[in-house]
Amino acid sequence: MPGRLREAMLYSLEAGGKRLRPALVLSAAEAVSGQKSAFDAALPVGCAVEYIHTYSLIHDDLPAMDNDDFRRGKPTNHKVFGEAMAILAGDALLTHAFHLIARAGRSGTVCAEAALAIVEDLSRLAGAPGMVGGQAADMLGEQGMTSIGELEYIHLHKTSDLIVFSVTAGGRIGGASAVQLELLAKYGRNIGLAFQIQDDILDLIGDEMKLGKKTNSDVQQNKVTYPYLIGIEASMAQVERLTQEAKSAVLEAGFAKPDRLLEIADYLVRRDH
Amino acid sequence: MPGRLREAMLYSLEAGGKRLRPALVLSAAEAVSGQKSAFDAALPVGCAVEYIHTYSLIHDDLPAMDNDDFRRGKPTNHKVFGEAMAILAGDALLTHAFHLIARAGRSGTVCAEAALAIVEDLSRLAGAPGMVGGQAADMLGEQGMTSIGELEYIHLHKTSDLIVFSVTAGGRIGGASAVQLELLAKYGRNIGLAFQIQDDILDLIGDEMKLGKKTNSDVQQNKVTYPYLIGIEASMAQVERLTQEAKSAVLEAGFAKPDRLLEIADYLVRRDH
Repeated sequence: MPGRLREAMLYSLEAGGKRLRPALVLSAAEAVSGQKSAFDAALPVGCAVEYIHTYSLIHDDLPAMDNDDFRRGKPTNHKVFGEAMAILAGDALLTHAFHLIARAGRSGTVCAEAALAIVEDLSRLAGAPGMVGGQAADMLGEQGMTSIGELEYIHLHKTSDLIVFSVTAGGRIGGASAVQLELLAKYGRNIGLAFQIQDDILDLIGDEMKLGKKTNSDVQQNKVTYPYLIGIEASMAQVERLTQEAKSAVLEAGFAKPDRLLEIADYLVRRDH
Repeated sequence: MPGRLREAMLYSLEAGGKRLRPALVLSAAEAVSGQKSAFDAALPVGCAVEYIHTYSLIHDDLPAMDNDDFRRGKPTNHKVFGEAMAILAGDALLTHAFHLIARAGRSGTVCAEAALAIVEDLSRLAGAPGMVGGQAADMLGEQGMTSIGELEYIHLHKTSDLIVFSVTAGGRIGGASAVQLELLAKYGRNIGLAFQIQDDILDLIGDEMKLGKKTNSDVQQNKVTYPYLIGIEASMAQVERLTQEAKSAVLEAGFAKPDRLLEIADYLVRRDH
């Protein structure tokens, strides 16, 4: 592959970030199986979801989309490599995510049946019915979209769906039952929504240095957010409530080692970036 | 999903085109198995490869890439739906291709092992080591790229890789042996290269009405092509030679019903659009 394409892919993959989604894949696999050895099988899928997340950031930052110049404190991909290479690097990362999962399934790292289910889940939750659909609704809604129902639709798909994928994929690798997968999905939906509302709150009251990007960008872009619709205090209470519901789902599932999933839910409320 | 996203996806999917890649998936499945019933299993994979091809056209046509206003005689996707929606429609089509394959594998339409192999093949041949890498090389090469070796690299990846995928995926569904898969890949590489050289020839001497796009665009964009490098007659001879080699590979494989694959190879030399 052309070196410049590889550089563009690595530039965004290595720009840091919280690695929340891979952490969720690994933590869910450990929670269900009770064994750290589940990490080995979960790792390729954890990488895959980070590839998907990274591609979505590269494409979202493009001039035709959110037109952002900085991400994680560094110039955005298209600012460094140009728009064409940024589009292609995104396409390549998206495509390679499926390669990581398929290879894990064919090599036996993940059992073939689980790998195929994970491919199906990812292609739904990251695609038009999921993340891409949420991003499209966000794009279309910017002029005049106002209802809290529509905003929840955007958040559930743009953010929660990939988080739901992360925990259910980890669950599948750990051998979760159908009921446990449903509770993991509930946990994922709730922390995903809490995560996005917290993002909106941080955009209003956060520290630019810690965030690595400008604050008040939502206000400047006339974006409708939770704080805009229901106020900042009600938004904070909502984050708290969603976090408690997420933790309840994990406790209800009776996992062997739920600690990490509970810690991540708490971390998302407390975070300042 | 937002209605506008669905419209944008369908607009390009339904814009026509030769459907060469799905025809190759079905024809290879029939060639190997000797049975038309292989069509049923091959159909979801045929659709998947057309989704991938369509996404690549939408992204390639963007202003940051080839900046084309017309495709198949109709305004390009971003001309109708805007750049943001065109980028997202491409992302969604790419992602959904994997959904079609995974679902076929999970429902038993295609056996699970073959489906996982097909996902792995597609994610390699459509990704950075394949089609996207070819497109990136094409983008990077436009200013100053001259050698025939580099041009062949671009064609092999930008065009042939997805054609290789089509025939080997059909082969896997039909139950091809490892040797047969290799011969199908050879057939695919050769007709893919012939196809691309023929495209370059048609851009010089074709009929705009039949092509549905402007001719001489390569010359105007200073693109290095086969006719530019070795002349139009040598290019035509090259198309002929590659087609014969492709047909030899199919005959060597001893397929039960090779006719359609042979016909497609011939059609590609004779076509005027």
